[in-house]
Amino acid sequence: MLRVGLLGAGRIGSVHAQTISGHPGSRLEAVSDALVANAEKLGAAFGAQVRSSEDIINDPQIDAVLIATPTDTHSDLIEAATAAGKAVLCEKPVDLNLERAMACQQTVARNGQPVMVGFNRRFDPNFATLQASLKEGEIGAPELLAVTSFDPAPPPVSYVKVSGGLYRDMMIHDFDLSNFLMGVPPETISAVGTSVVDPAIAAAGDVDTAVVTMTYADGRIAVIKNSRRAVYGYDQRVEILGSGGLLQAQNVLEHTVVKSTADGVISAKPTYFFLERYMAAYRAEWDAFVTAITAGTQVPVTLEDGVAALAMAEAATRSAQTGAPVRLAEILKPVAK
Amino acid sequence: MLRVGLLGAGRIGSVHAQTISGHPGSRLEAVSDALVANAEKLGAAFGAQVRSSEDIINDPQIDAVLIATPTDTHSDLIEAATAAGKAVLCEKPVDLNLERAMACQQTVARNGQPVMVGFNRRFDPNFATLQASLKEGEIGAPELLAVTSFDPAPPPVSYVKVSGGLYRDMMIHDFDLSNFLMGVPPETISAVGTSVVDPAIAAAGDVDTAVVTMTYADGRIAVIKNSRRAVYGYDQRVEILGSGGLLQAQNVLEHTVVKSTADGVISAKPTYFFLERYMAAYRAEWDAFVTAITAGTQVPVTLEDGVAALAMAEAATRSAQTGAPVRLAEILKPVAK
Amino acid sequence: MLRVGLLGAGRIGSVHAQTISGHPGSRLEAVSDALVANAEKLGAAFGAQVRSSEDIINDPQIDAVLIATPTDTHSDLIEAATAAGKAVLCEKPVDLNLERAMACQQTVARNGQPVMVGFNRRFDPNFATLQASLKEGEIGAPELLAVTSFDPAPPPVSYVKVSGGLYRDMMIHDFDLSNFLMGVPPETISAVGTSVVDPAIAAAGDVDTAVVTMTYADGRIAVIKNSRRAVYGYDQRVEILGSGGLLQAQNVLEHTVVKSTADGVISAKPTYFFLERYMAAYRAEWDAFVTAITAGTQVPVTLEDGVAALAMAEAATRSAQTGAPVRLAEILKPVAK
Amino acid sequence: MLRVGLLGAGRIGSVHAQTISGHPGSRLEAVSDALVANAEKLGAAFGAQVRSSEDIINDPQIDAVLIATPTDTHSDLIEAATAAGKAVLCEKPVDLNLERAMACQQTVARNGQPVMVGFNRRFDPNFATLQASLKEGEIGAPELLAVTSFDPAPPPVSYVKVSGGLYRDMMIHDFDLSNFLMGVPPETISAVGTSVVDPAIAAAGDVDTAVVTMTYADGRIAVIKNSRRAVYGYDQRVEILGSGGLLQAQNVLEHTVVKSTADGVISAKPTYFFLERYMAAYRAEWDAFVTAITAGTQVPVTLEDGVAALAMAEAATRSAQTGAPVRLAEILKPVAK
Repeated sequence: MLRVGLLGAGRIGSVHAQTISGHPGSRLEAVSDALVANAEKLGAAFGAQVRSSEDIINDPQIDAVLIATPTDTHSDLIEAATAAGKAVLCEKPVDLNLERAMACQQTVARNGQPVMVGFNRRFDPNFATLQASLKEGEIGAPELLAVTSFDPAPPPVSYVKVSGGLYRDMMIHDFDLSNFLMGVPPETISAVGTSVVDPAIAAAGDVDTAVVTMTYADGRIAVIKNSRRAVYGYDQRVEILGSGGLLQAQNVLEHTVVKSTADGVISAKPTYFFLERYMAAYRAEWDAFVTAITAGTQVPVTLEDGVAALAMAEAATRSAQTGAPVRLAEILKPVAK
Repeated sequence: MLRVGLLGAGRIGSVHAQTISGHPGSRLEAVSDALVANAEKLGAAFGAQVRSSEDIINDPQIDAVLIATPTDTHSDLIEAATAAGKAVLCEKPVDLNLERAMACQQTVARNGQPVMVGFNRRFDPNFATLQASLKEGEIGAPELLAVTSFDPAPPPVSYVKVSGGLYRDMMIHDFDLSNFLMGVPPETISAVGTSVVDPAIAAAGDVDTAVVTMTYADGRIAVIKNSRRAVYGYDQRVEILGSGGLLQAQNVLEHTVVKSTADGVISAKPTYFFLERYMAAYRAEWDAFVTAITAGTQVPVTLEDGVAALAMAEAATRSAQTGAPVRLAEILKPVAK
Repeated sequence: MLRVGLLGAGRIGSVHAQTISGHPGSRLEAVSDALVANAEKLGAAFGAQVRSSEDIINDPQIDAVLIATPTDTHSDLIEAATAAGKAVLCEKPVDLNLERAMACQQTVARNGQPVMVGFNRRFDPNFATLQASLKEGEIGAPELLAVTSFDPAPPPVSYVKVSGGLYRDMMIHDFDLSNFLMGVPPETISAVGTSVVDPAIAAAGDVDTAVVTMTYADGRIAVIKNSRRAVYGYDQRVEILGSGGLLQAQNVLEHTVVKSTADGVISAKPTYFFLERYMAAYRAEWDAFVTAITAGTQVPVTLEDGVAALAMAEAATRSAQTGAPVRLAEILKPVAK
Repeated sequence: MLRVGLLGAGRIGSVHAQTISGHPGSRLEAVSDALVANAEKLGAAFGAQVRSSEDIINDPQIDAVLIATPTDTHSDLIEAATAAGKAVLCEKPVDLNLERAMACQQTVARNGQPVMVGFNRRFDPNFATLQASLKEGEIGAPELLAVTSFDPAPPPVSYVKVSGGLYRDMMIHDFDLSNFLMGVPPETISAVGTSVVDPAIAAAGDVDTAVVTMTYADGRIAVIKNSRRAVYGYDQRVEILGSGGLLQAQNVLEHTVVKSTADGVISAKPTYFFLERYMAAYRAEWDAFVTAITAGTQVPVTLEDGVAALAMAEAATRSAQTGAPVRLAEILKPVAK
């Protein structure tokens, strides 16, 4: 039985509290939050103590912590928790600052504790099925990957301003998903971004619509499309062409009812919200973490994966500014030395 | 080159004129119609002579006739044309009167000329693909057939009154399709009919909605659903469950465009009209006729098939009246002697 | 907080233990089972006491019992529990014997406690969405209902022998679903059954494939297709034609991945097992029960609904034997006096 | 009645012979081909004279010519035919050489005869429906276009060598389709190409897989994916995200039959060959030409459209070589002066 402390009791923290409590191999022991009321609400609902993050991290009765706090605290908490001997599952992204994330990676390497990064899409049953099929060679050698990822509606501009920008905040999921599917990171990254959804996003210095093309050492290509607005729901699709065929993961729909009238044949929309869309993924993600920690095996998404995705976001940001492709190696070089 | 006379230049006659002219192995030589203006229009468009049906039938330069006249003339024309040595393709149904159709069948047997009945659905590429798949055992032994056949809108009541009723006029297609798919006619037929679409149809003594269940000697079951009104288009679907799976032929849609908005995901409707839906079938039907006549092989839909479907319509009509299942053998008995 | 006793700790009892424990408004207090080991396993997993059914029923600290025991104990337990002042959710069917179920209904009426029958399909999000759409008039007046319900594989013959037969054991779900969608029970029921899946089922006196047609007082028609075997999974579809269009609830698929190769375009199969298919329905069903009991409102599926479905199964069984339609009023008459 | 001469009697010439002959407003008078046997075969089949291209062009009894000869003869034939007062429909591309195409455009302007370029996809019923829906504002303002266009199998390397490369030979269709849908040509074009399908294509100096990203003056983005090989068939899809939703044109499938077995749910593949896929488009294209010429209105795809698509192919070729985005204005500049 893994005894777990949850740092952060906001929206995503609540989701994790549920998955921790509902899992037969873990127990939610304690919860913290900068807003104590949040922590108290969650603690009461799941029978967990309300404590400070520091307290939880230093409690020898706690085996693992799940970090669901604001992004700018992730690196510090990961370092502190691993220093205190805890296994860690940290929400994405590791950090908005690549150098900080890489320093954290080195600290963690010295601390010797497992850290898993919460890229939930790897655990979505549909994407996981697609990846397994790909790995088994069902469409031969993969050649051309296309990821479509549209949010239902843009976040508030106040959030956009501190988000790190679309590539670090939103497309980072798709960068990790690409690495998951292609098996390795790309060599070059070219980004084209624009603001056609909301002028306030442009005013905040960000884009709301973007296309990123990536090339790989062995000649393969990947392309990612992002938009902050798809009024019909959360549009999350992947397709990959291989020498033996095509694999597509289509949207998850709200229900299976189809209505045919004089106006057309009307089906359900994709689920609207990421929690609805990825609830099964969050459960599977937590199960993978518990299983790896309990068995002492490698966690399925490492800090290195988190750093790679962040470096890709950095490269895309730079490419969008210069208009030229950016080599991932250049991004990783200055810090790696 | 098959030299063809077309008897009947109405809506369906026009379709046939096109398929005859467009086929490399046949030529439209002459056309007749009770309304001479109809015949003249078609003759001009396709470069064919306008003559009387009698003339065409007795012209030794004509090899085959296609009968697309009103139903009550079919039997007489089939008999006359085969007596004159012509091969015949006759539109369904052979006759509204089963005894007359059976007498015609005997006459034709004596005349020794091939007669094919125009059950177009057998030649629809989708139903034909389904039947071929079934025959090759792709779902093992068939067990339960379901045919859905809804017209977009009811015909005028004036037509309903002379149509012979829903079972003879509309469901006769589905009876033949069942025989095509199941390989043999059923043993028993139970019909339930109602008028919920238009009270004028009930007033005319007919039904507009019906379900017919049929049982087969080897234990299989088939069920047919008919409605005179599906406001979203011409709904023509078949599915059959077998020991190894399910085969479904779905609707043919107007186009492949899908629109996703805040109101839902909207696809195209089924094609609305039978000509649009079955144009490919008409072409394939004519090709099958030309091929069989030219090669001297058996036509793929015989007069016997036409009589069987008519007998099933007769049985269904009787069952709907009595509320009890009717054995097909009873229907065929009084006349067969 | 509803304090709940669970009677029956088998496969379906385990499902209910989960939904009771996972609901914020209910707590699993005690569990019983004829096989004590079953009850102990479940009690340990969910922190509930292991007791006898009698004990649980008579404990004033228990507010409600969920009956998930073998069918032949349902009526007795319903009567005992309501006599002891408990609210009851009982798995379907109420009883295999219609007279016993009707007697139970009268006893419950005297005891004055709410009894809900566990027809889970009413709570499936897809069927519930379809019914809501229907009720809001989105396809106008309903005219023709078709229910397709195929199990993935037949049950063991030992089970078939005590099941009450396909109509009472399997199609009873579809009878209730028809009543849910059509709003009222039918007037007449005609059944055709056969055994083409497994000769052992015929030897046991049952059928494995059946079609039932039902007519309604206002002229509408419904048809139900059942098979004990669909090798591709649990096939659960509904469609209803109305004056303004068609509503269809399609299958729930295992995942959204589509693979296109030289062999064809391959999608996921329907979920294979009823628990997987209806897990969301079980959760919604329990929520509806807790909500009704807590608020003191009418439960959404009554004992009367359970008796109606059973009477329809009785009528279908009789029709299949005689070959003639059976009026539902005749079935209900002898007992109702 | 438009009297038509057909220059070129190869595979695509045969298709056009059919559409010309089948159209009520046009008649195929004469046909030419460098291989006289080709012309003779087609002439015999459709009752047309076999003559030289020069003869046909200079015959005052001919109203229009359809040019379906090898690409390197297009510009010369367009110029000669318009000089002789003929209306012209010319197969795509106008030329492989942009300067030559632009010179041709100027000559044609002087000759004052209408020239339509055969970009067949604009006339595909699915793409045309999508464009009409877009134009009517059904998804609000368009923001992000994605075109997927995969051939079933690569052409022979001998063809690749003289094709002008993937961008000019294959993607030129998608460039024109983008202009059709977006309404204007893009400002910048970035191409990434690779050869992962067949090393012989790389050896021939070409790519077989490519992604092109385009930006527009008003901030919109388009992305095109091309591959020379999709073993499941001819994959031709378009989707466009707008402020009010998403429009998708999906593949045309071989038939509507779906087979569900223990191995999965198997649907038909996309049609395999471009002739099968676009036959309806060829008919509609010819009809649009005849209608415009007969009515004296503007042809729907102009030589300017042909030049624009060719310039985009030129820009993509250059971008793929340099790795940097290319401005379309730069491509058009040197020649435009």
